[in-house]
Amino acid sequence: MRMGELSRRSGVSVPTIKYYLREGLLPAGTATGRNQADYGDGHLRRLRVIRVLIDVGGVSVTAAREVLAAIDDPDVVGHHLLGVAHHAVAPAARGRRDTEQWRAARAEVDAVVRRRGWAISPDAAALDHVADVICAARALGLDELLAGMDTYADAAELVARHDIDTVVTRAQRGGPGDEQALMVETVITGTVLGESLLTGLRLLAQEATSARTLGDER
Amino acid sequence: MRMGELSRRSGVSVPTIKYYLREGLLPAGTATGRNQADYGDGHLRRLRVIRVLIDVGGVSVTAAREVLAAIDDPDVVGHHLLGVAHHAVAPAARGRRDTEQWRAARAEVDAVVRRRGWAISPDAAALDHVADVICAARALGLDELLAGMDTYADAAELVARHDIDTVVTRAQRGGPGDEQALMVETVITGTVLGESLLTGLRLLAQEATSARTLGDER
Repeated sequence: MRMGELSRRSGVSVPTIKYYLREGLLPAGTATGRNQADYGDGHLRRLRVIRVLIDVGGVSVTAAREVLAAIDDPDVVGHHLLGVAHHAVAPAARGRRDTEQWRAARAEVDAVVRRRGWAISPDAAALDHVADVICAARALGLDELLAGMDTYADAAELVARHDIDTVVTRAQRGGPGDEQALMVETVITGTVLGESLLTGLRLLAQEATSARTLGDER
Repeated sequence: MRMGELSRRSGVSVPTIKYYLREGLLPAGTATGRNQADYGDGHLRRLRVIRVLIDVGGVSVTAAREVLAAIDDPDVVGHHLLGVAHHAVAPAARGRRDTEQWRAARAEVDAVVRRRGWAISPDAAALDHVADVICAARALGLDELLAGMDTYADAAELVARHDIDTVVTRAQRGGPGDEQALMVETVITGTVLGESLLTGLRLLAQEATSARTLGDER
């Protein structure tokens, strides 16, 4: 298809598609003339993944390029894909990590991981991220929130089991050869979209719970 | 305390504190001289809330100012606080909302809300947000993720119950007069920090589940 049709079918404007081509996020089409190229369904699909990463995941163009390179890398497989996806969506460090308070929070995270029996690579960025959150909550005296750590971990396990099932099921749906690409794409888009879904549903569930508990105060 | 001590105790630099004062996020201190002012524990506490909103919640300075105004508004109480907090942290609209696909996704959200028996105000931003996610997932053929909608909703309810308990318990901990301010602050910081906590724990739980399921592939 021509770029005009690619734009129409993807809902991404032509200037933006050209930008993604220049930035190397989208592979070039097959040249069919001096100023014309032909694009396939692969380009359409790739554009959708780019939009999920950038619009929903809030991932930078640079980070998106790294993630997309992983999608195309046949050496990144199975469990290791998760590291790539997590690296892309992991929030940047917040606040100082060289304080005594932070180290105490980090030790708390290790205790949660041990208690849950989770096998986690010691350099997983999420370990530090959770410590950042604990540190910030502690500084605000939000002890009640932190007292619910295991409730939060229960919820996280519930969705994580479903997430990993999704990755496995979906990879198997693709034919041979597709399996790898589908698995990487599912890990990345599922991580980003699943987070966004959970955020939205939590706000709704809070409103529903709050209406029952606090609604008659006014 | 002087501004230097406020900076030391909050971990926020003096230029940043001055910026927050200029932008009206932080109330002025009590003037003690031509170029000097005195700051209290209220300022320290407010600085911590600002950092949670901006650093953890990714909230803009303008949105943070609105939220802080709500903290100071005695007319915003109970269940209504939740609306203010949600408005501040709600993600902006993504993609087009005038398509048939989007309307179908929005109807799916209504079905979820009915099925769960959630009482939700029809103009809650999270309804549209969840529809955005469904639309994006559908475009990518991520049907397995969406098939787990009720698993996600179960997880959301689990944490929401704890979140609302946290708000109620913490508000009661403050003495009379403090109750209102503490409740608003807890809703806002708890919403932001809880989301971040859930994100981090989900990544860890995914890694743990993936290590069990996919770990021996390599």
